[in-house]
Amino acid sequence: MTDRTHSSTATEIVSIDPRTGATVGTVARTTTEEQLDQRCRAAAEAAGTLARSGRFWRAELLRTMAAGLEERRADIVAVADRETALGEGRLNSELTRTCYQFQLFAEALEEGSFLEAAIDHAAETPMGPRPDVRRLLVPRGPVAVFGASNFPLAFSVPGGDTVSALAAGCPVVVKAHPSHPETAELCGAVLGAAAERSGAPVGTLALVHGQDAGAQLVQHPEIRAVGFTGSLGGGRALFDLAAGRPDPIPFYGELGSLNPLVVTPEAAARRGTEIAAGIIGSVTQGAGQFCTKPGLVFLPGGPDGSAMLDAMADQVSDREPAILLNDGVRQGYLRTSSALAGEDGVRLVAEGAPPQAQGWSVPVRLLATETARLGPGVLEECFGPATLVVTYSEPQDLLDALREVPGSLATSLFAEPTEGELATAVSGLAQEQAGRIVFDGYPTGVAVTWAMQHGGPWPATTDAGHTSVGVTAIRRFMRPMTWQNAPEHLLPEELRDAPSQPVPRRVDGELTLG
Amino acid sequence: MTDRTHSSTATEIVSIDPRTGATVGTVARTTTEEQLDQRCRAAAEAAGTLARSGRFWRAELLRTMAAGLEERRADIVAVADRETALGEGRLNSELTRTCYQFQLFAEALEEGSFLEAAIDHAAETPMGPRPDVRRLLVPRGPVAVFGASNFPLAFSVPGGDTVSALAAGCPVVVKAHPSHPETAELCGAVLGAAAERSGAPVGTLALVHGQDAGAQLVQHPEIRAVGFTGSLGGGRALFDLAAGRPDPIPFYGELGSLNPLVVTPEAAARRGTEIAAGIIGSVTQGAGQFCTKPGLVFLPGGPDGSAMLDAMADQVSDREPAILLNDGVRQGYLRTSSALAGEDGVRLVAEGAPPQAQGWSVPVRLLATETARLGPGVLEECFGPATLVVTYSEPQDLLDALREVPGSLATSLFAEPTEGELATAVSGLAQEQAGRIVFDGYPTGVAVTWAMQHGGPWPATTDAGHTSVGVTAIRRFMRPMTWQNAPEHLLPEELRDAPSQPVPRRVDGELTLG
Repeated sequence: MTDRTHSSTATEIVSIDPRTGATVGTVARTTTEEQLDQRCRAAAEAAGTLARSGRFWRAELLRTMAAGLEERRADIVAVADRETALGEGRLNSELTRTCYQFQLFAEALEEGSFLEAAIDHAAETPMGPRPDVRRLLVPRGPVAVFGASNFPLAFSVPGGDTVSALAAGCPVVVKAHPSHPETAELCGAVLGAAAERSGAPVGTLALVHGQDAGAQLVQHPEIRAVGFTGSLGGGRALFDLAAGRPDPIPFYGELGSLNPLVVTPEAAARRGTEIAAGIIGSVTQGAGQFCTKPGLVFLPGGPDGSAMLDAMADQVSDREPAILLNDGVRQGYLRTSSALAGEDGVRLVAEGAPPQAQGWSVPVRLLATETARLGPGVLEECFGPATLVVTYSEPQDLLDALREVPGSLATSLFAEPTEGELATAVSGLAQEQAGRIVFDGYPTGVAVTWAMQHGGPWPATTDAGHTSVGVTAIRRFMRPMTWQNAPEHLLPEELRDAPSQPVPRRVDGELTLG
Repeated sequence: MTDRTHSSTATEIVSIDPRTGATVGTVARTTTEEQLDQRCRAAAEAAGTLARSGRFWRAELLRTMAAGLEERRADIVAVADRETALGEGRLNSELTRTCYQFQLFAEALEEGSFLEAAIDHAAETPMGPRPDVRRLLVPRGPVAVFGASNFPLAFSVPGGDTVSALAAGCPVVVKAHPSHPETAELCGAVLGAAAERSGAPVGTLALVHGQDAGAQLVQHPEIRAVGFTGSLGGGRALFDLAAGRPDPIPFYGELGSLNPLVVTPEAAARRGTEIAAGIIGSVTQGAGQFCTKPGLVFLPGGPDGSAMLDAMADQVSDREPAILLNDGVRQGYLRTSSALAGEDGVRLVAEGAPPQAQGWSVPVRLLATETARLGPGVLEECFGPATLVVTYSEPQDLLDALREVPGSLATSLFAEPTEGELATAVSGLAQEQAGRIVFDGYPTGVAVTWAMQHGGPWPATTDAGHTSVGVTAIRRFMRPMTWQNAPEHLLPEELRDAPSQPVPRRVDGELTLG
């Protein structure tokens, strides 16, 4: 997801109301380099204890954290709404998602297969005698998490990266997002109290504020991995810092995605009006500030596609202005959507109600062009409530155009059963260019579950090999370790011949359920 | 493993005999940028076909390749011995290992759990209705593999990286190592013929020669990941190129490792002589040119440690000179071991028989120092048949010194059952600083099996989250993909409700054996 936030050298971290643009108060101060160093060292000291804590204790820690958030639900939602204008309904759902995620990850810890335990007993092999080797994933160490502007509760202090790192057994230092510092402080206090109640070591969770602190965090010698959600520009800069360290560390960043959505000729003919409404609903959900927003909509040329575009335009014209997360996002939205409208062959088809006089309010925008006009200037993500319709004439135009779209989190396809060949072709392309393909549905709304992949080829993410949503997100913060000929008492519990709790393992090559 | 090779702007790729230093002949020419581009594009064209080929077909491809190598065993070993001087015994073992690895990976393909198949059926959840989501690992696309000087058959054209990438379904472009270009050409021809016999698409496997071609390969837009084994300097330069691309790609590099080996006071007292002989055997195996060679040996002070050092010195004095892989490795060995000997507090304890007049022959060297003298200049890997003994006085000195050792592939520990506290402490440190801990054994000899981890914190590898040996090495070249609400016929075989072949899957959160 793309989001530009105002850089600031001020030492006061203020909370702003996006509905009015007014500064509500000072929440914190930027973290000094010395404070940051202390927090990272405390995290490093906590790392050993957390690594030895065991998965059942960590499951309880996650549940205690979820309970803590639930207990303060009303306060958290009220503060988050005041700082983000996302609305209490959405924020309640977001908090429910976050708490559910803590529970699901606690279950995954208890189930144990995330450890990838494997035992190969000593044996004779075609290459001679083999020693006893046993493998398990272990935590990487302190993790830096960058809060996202658009998910104050699901990708910020609590959320996907934090729960993944804690589940892995890694301490977390969160760089709070400047769009919701008070929410960050409140959630940090709630999670910190839960950690203390659980007997977690000091240093298990810490917060830092300020852009400089973010850059220092990625470069701090004690930090072993980074989870990031934000803009392509900011994310690339931090990725470069992580890769440029004397000891490079993995930087798991989600940076920006166009998420092409394709409507086939038959789908447009049979369900055009319904799909048109659904697309605009998806584009404007959360004021269009979702990383999975469909930013490119491919419609067939001819009367069915035209009817769909008209229906989408009607929907857009009726929309109230959207209130964006901060002034940086607002300016970026206006600049990018205006630049798009100014590109050769692109036209502004419809615009929603004009913005309010105060706050970070913007109109919803619908733009349109044709496959022949796609190019670098047009294939730009516009973060916020806008989308670009691209009309294609023949299936081949569509496929050629799709090949030009940069890596995305998701590709969506509306097709009829009679259109097997086209569906197969689009689906095949999606497998090269996205991390998820959605059939007859919209890409917004990412289920927190085992089988979810939220990640895709660059620039959607820095490494498509991982997900930031779903249980397998834990793996980002673990690394394999092998014990060779180890005495039983020096082995982790899960690698002993008879573990006290069942755990799925691969034993002498055979997968066992434990 | 560290290895410096001569840079060359010549266009002729020549084969040199390390036993004489003489040029035997011209094998190939450096690959031009145009040729490289053609091979990468051919790989990209093959990628789609390979991705759709299915795991059973790929298993057969790997078996056909193994059979092809076996068929030409005598020729391959003869050429490799002439180019590396590693000896026919060692090279026969290495080829056996490589062929076994092809077989093991074929079995893993048939077993299917490497795909991490997961199905979550549509359901009601605490967050509302969830769509049907199904996840599978898919190939990343064309992979660049850099051949290693020290494993002409196990980490070069055939070997761990190539078999991992092919098993994943990725085409491979190998940068041949200049130390054994004829072996590379021969193995490339054998594997290429096997691929053709299997009906693999053109572009499944290609070779390139030359240092410039290596740098271009890492930056080629069609290359999606890199597997590398080599020096810290060269590896870091290529890592930086991969990370600096407009679209960064994962660079899985193994760069250099000291592999500390610890002997406790009781172990030295009871088994000192036997362990001393074992250490020198491990240090000189393959002329010391193993990434897992124990480069730092911690011995207790006092008479038991002294007796061990004397025994090691006796062993070394008796050793014949070793013939190294190329002149770059030879010069690097002499330079690094001499620099080590010149460090304050470090002494050359023993040296083997003097080198022969011709070829890349060097003496075995044993150096010694104390924990107090460890520092950056001393903690340098010396690639070749040398090791540095470090004497410690108290267990605490040992632990403090171990903390200074950079990330390693393996830590080894010889201890007696009575020394539980010290063993626990060393084992705990090893879990932070290495990818494998070996008890009462030597780190050389890395079993090809499910539970192996060959990878460790920087600089041992660029990302400790992966292995280059063992079945899980496949994962480096795959990425997850999710299908949401997909019609059955557009799902990969392994994600259909009733797959035609059994495959382990996680279904609605439950692991099933398939």
